Amino acid sequence: MSTSEERRETGKAIQGQLWPAVLTGPTGQFPAAKLAPDFFDIVQQTAFGELWARPGLAVRDRSMITVAMLAALGHTDELRAHLAGALNVGISREELVEVLMQVSIYAGVPATGAALRVAADVLGTPDE
Amino acid sequence: MSTSEERRETGKAIQGQLWPAVLTGPTGQFPAAKLAPDFFDIVQQTAFGELWARPGLAVRDRSMITVAMLAALGHTDELRAHLAGALNVGISREELVEVLMQVSIYAGVPATGAALRVAADVLGTPDE
Amino acid sequence: MSTSEERRETGKAIQGQLWPAVLTGPTGQFPAAKLAPDFFDIVQQTAFGELWARPGLAVRDRSMITVAMLAALGHTDELRAHLAGALNVGISREELVEVLMQVSIYAGVPATGAALRVAADVLGTPDE
Amino acid sequence: MSTSEERRETGKAIQGQLWPAVLTGPTGQFPAAKLAPDFFDIVQQTAFGELWARPGLAVRDRSMITVAMLAALGHTDELRAHLAGALNVGISREELVEVLMQVSIYAGVPATGAALRVAADVLGTPDE
Amino acid sequence: MSTSEERRETGKAIQGQLWPAVLTGPTGQFPAAKLAPDFFDIVQQTAFGELWARPGLAVRDRSMITVAMLAALGHTDELRAHLAGALNVGISREELVEVLMQVSIYAGVPATGAALRVAADVLGTPDE
Amino acid sequence: MSTSEERRETGKAIQGQLWPAVLTGPTGQFPAAKLAPDFFDIVQQTAFGELWARPGLAVRDRSMITVAMLAALGHTDELRAHLAGALNVGISREELVEVLMQVSIYAGVPATGAALRVAADVLGTPDE
Repeated sequence: MSTSEERRETGKAIQGQLWPAVLTGPTGQFPAAKLAPDFFDIVQQTAFGELWARPGLAVRDRSMITVAMLAALGHTDELRAHLAGALNVGISREELVEVLMQVSIYAGVPATGAALRVAADVLGTPDE
Repeated sequence: MSTSEERRETGKAIQGQLWPAVLTGPTGQFPAAKLAPDFFDIVQQTAFGELWARPGLAVRDRSMITVAMLAALGHTDELRAHLAGALNVGISREELVEVLMQVSIYAGVPATGAALRVAADVLGTPDE
Repeated sequence: MSTSEERRETGKAIQGQLWPAVLTGPTGQFPAAKLAPDFFDIVQQTAFGELWARPGLAVRDRSMITVAMLAALGHTDELRAHLAGALNVGISREELVEVLMQVSIYAGVPATGAALRVAADVLGTPDE
Repeated sequence: MSTSEERRETGKAIQGQLWPAVLTGPTGQFPAAKLAPDFFDIVQQTAFGELWARPGLAVRDRSMITVAMLAALGHTDELRAHLAGALNVGISREELVEVLMQVSIYAGVPATGAALRVAADVLGTPDE
Repeated sequence: MSTSEERRETGKAIQGQLWPAVLTGPTGQFPAAKLAPDFFDIVQQTAFGELWARPGLAVRDRSMITVAMLAALGHTDELRAHLAGALNVGISREELVEVLMQVSIYAGVPATGAALRVAADVLGTPDE
Repeated sequence: MSTSEERRETGKAIQGQLWPAVLTGPTGQFPAAKLAPDFFDIVQQTAFGELWARPGLAVRDRSMITVAMLAALGHTDELRAHLAGALNVGISREELVEVLMQVSIYAGVPATGAALRVAADVLGTPDE
């Protein structure tokens, strides 16, 4: 049995692995969080505190499938955040490019094209 | 039996409830309407004049499900217009936030995140 | 602060409004629940216990937007369950048909066609 | 200015080109049409009577892009009907296979795979 | 049996029909191509060199269905490029507007609205 | 520089890891392959022979992200095949359940529900 506060702490720990430099959480000051603070609290407790935190799959594997899904579904804003997070949990730029190339088989070439445009911005390019 | 002109008038009346401050209709001057004026005429006649105008469901209910669908499908430009329209037909900002939070169950967390970013801009945030 | 058990009870109460005749919950015997019992427990706690249960929007409104989203997204299995649930929380067959017709504007005619085929089965047709 | 009845006649003529052997229209006896007769009437008037009937693009071209879109969006029931319709407006089985193969570039390999399974049933295979 | 180099040449010839003014290919300098040069090489060899180049369907028809699919799937960046390409392979502005209007039947009004906003920019409007 | 035949051999080797008991390839006898043999040949050469075979990401990782994407996109037929393939390249049933649970965060609860129904059939349930 877990309390809300326990789940928040667990979620915050996972978020800290993905985005160590960001002060995360329901008290964030961006406009969407001010409009719907409970939503970001529930996401922290459930998405991060209950699902991402489960021991049955490594955080690295969860990060990799998250990047693939966000690219396949066209959620480029979230993709941007999770590409940065993926680097922080140990997935290399070269592996992320392979993940995005694999997306093209299942979601089509334009999905990979859009994801690579975001990735070039987040990850930089080889000769930079 | 309805004529084109009757449907246009009915559609215009519904559009006027949603967006009273906007001069709507097929003669609008935005570029897409200049490129395809017939399309916006058909939308006015059919989407608004035939479907939205049907008496079997309140305009408020149609507005609410439209906001939910646009958020779930990721149509953020249309969502922006329909969030403003929803306020005009009597749905409160607090209810709209609840609608968008419910979207996350069925379309995923990123769909709600993207919708809340638009909503924070259209609806403002509580302490503004 | 809420515990897992409190959320489960709240979620079960909402599920009981939607589907009073069904014994719901994580101990259900259908194969997917046996494969992933924790998933259905988390859904009960979070989707039903935290989101559907929030007081800011009526269960009837949540049911209506859920039906619209499931039709728009093409999730016909879930749609089947939620059409039955919608009747149980007071939405009429005629209103549900209007909801599904409205879907065609935003998700296209085939989405409504597929939803109406499910609805004809769940809701029956007028002369039955 | 067109009346409802004029649009119905125009729509019925287009439907007759696509599906000459089928008695179409709002009085059809399939369950979804009994549940929502107005919906199929509006589709006949608008989708067929106003959009498909426009002179600016050949019915053959409209049929071809419709098959591509339905495959890309995964609407397999509607795809089945429109593959049969495409043959009736002069698109060959070989061309339809090319259309479905092109879908894989933009919507991914599984979209084409699902469409080809339907097509093998509707169109038959070369040595049959 | 085809070699990589033969497929590249075939693909480049198709790309040259669609976008004659652009120096295309894997050595392009845009950031995504620098990040994932192999991806754009595979697209040139396969999407253009093997699928678009097949003789069973005219390039004009492939262009038309591609525009329809990109609009239906909401890939606006790729749509922009393929609207320009469609003009270059002989599809008129008026036909492209008809294609995008047809999209609304199968993918909904907002898909056409978003596509027309891109099209107004790429194609210009009638009185310009 | 690779020839068609080399790519086919490489693709066949990857397919053999995923589905060792199946005679795969363009000569398969299922109806879709008889209708469009070239399509399945291109998939073998490109999807498997060029993308899956790249050394920059393990086949296990490619399998895991493929399962996640297919579940997120609702391609249940392909998901069925790739769940079986995932077991063959060393991903456990328990890990696959975790992958599918993670899908619910990004694509919604119904996507995971549909995937678990397929998975219960392919993977069996714990007490079987």
